Amino acid sequence: MARTQGSHSGITGPRVREAALHLFAQHGYAAVSMRKIASEVGVQAGALYNYTPDKQTLLFDLMRTHMEELLAAWDAAAPPTGAGAPTALEAFTRFHIRFNTRRADAVFVSYMELRNLEPENFSIIEGLRRDYETRAEAILRRGVAEGRFAVAEPRIAAMALIAMLTGVNTWFRERGRLSLAEVETVYWDMVRRMVANQG
Amino acid sequence: MARTQGSHSGITGPRVREAALHLFAQHGYAAVSMRKIASEVGVQAGALYNYTPDKQTLLFDLMRTHMEELLAAWDAAAPPTGAGAPTALEAFTRFHIRFNTRRADAVFVSYMELRNLEPENFSIIEGLRRDYETRAEAILRRGVAEGRFAVAEPRIAAMALIAMLTGVNTWFRERGRLSLAEVETVYWDMVRRMVANQG
Repeated sequence: MARTQGSHSGITGPRVREAALHLFAQHGYAAVSMRKIASEVGVQAGALYNYTPDKQTLLFDLMRTHMEELLAAWDAAAPPTGAGAPTALEAFTRFHIRFNTRRADAVFVSYMELRNLEPENFSIIEGLRRDYETRAEAILRRGVAEGRFAVAEPRIAAMALIAMLTGVNTWFRERGRLSLAEVETVYWDMVRRMVANQG
Repeated sequence: MARTQGSHSGITGPRVREAALHLFAQHGYAAVSMRKIASEVGVQAGALYNYTPDKQTLLFDLMRTHMEELLAAWDAAAPPTGAGAPTALEAFTRFHIRFNTRRADAVFVSYMELRNLEPENFSIIEGLRRDYETRAEAILRRGVAEGRFAVAEPRIAAMALIAMLTGVNTWFRERGRLSLAEVETVYWDMVRRMVANQG
């Protein structure tokens, strides 16, 4: 199982991250030792410390990377402001479902292991989560300003939206009755109605 | 810390459950030993086995009790069918938020520790969760039949609704800007619009 081999951070880095994410998602951060992660990667425990100083740093790096990738991917995918808020909200809805269903372990660990972050690390992850919520909130506020949306509490609506979309992870299975694109459309129809200005 | 005292299931039962729930929520099931739970309760580890045969049974009991209490509380709170689907959906929305924000540890453990249930236990908990989703789905289908709701996918809408409402647990704090009753109203306004038949 535990093949002994040299550690070169360029080679083992992604494998360490993948193994740690999988083990944390399966068993929980507190129950997974650095030795266990090393064994999964196929290196000796000592080699792991060439990559990361400790388990807390590894968890924090995984959670920060997930949030930074999420933010960067959305910023790259977001339609230009001129496209209007409904177009942006549809893009956000489809993006969030697509991005997160493909990263089930990272999403699960990101919610579940907040409690195991040291205070300084927690603040940084919370800040990144707030940044993402603010992206959604800004679309809702823009839609209100454009007269297209009616949203009494844009911050709460943004959090409701994100919780609802992330929930797809708990039930969606590839090769189920609906394709992911069809699921996106079902959710967009609900989101659209939830925020539409009927007046 | 670990006061030694006799175990009488009528007395220590609730305390065992409360301590286990709190520890599982804090550290995760896999990282919490029976000895640790006993220490938290203030009994010797052996006394715990008068109450529960093992840690898996304890986890399963906690999750089953949470779901059974949720179902029983909703069945007691649900308006009579004659009241119409919009009334039922408003009651469900307010009920779910109120019930779950008061049981943050139980809700967290119920989502997070599904992975640690043995297959037979998992099936039972999954069945109870489906029962609850079916209650919400039935309201949506009834509203469509009454011509009050337009919902293309009632099962998916029920899961979206539950995920959205459960999300309140991640941000709501007593004595925040909005009272719980005000938060319920904000969510009911969103839910109402999400399912309303505009035609």
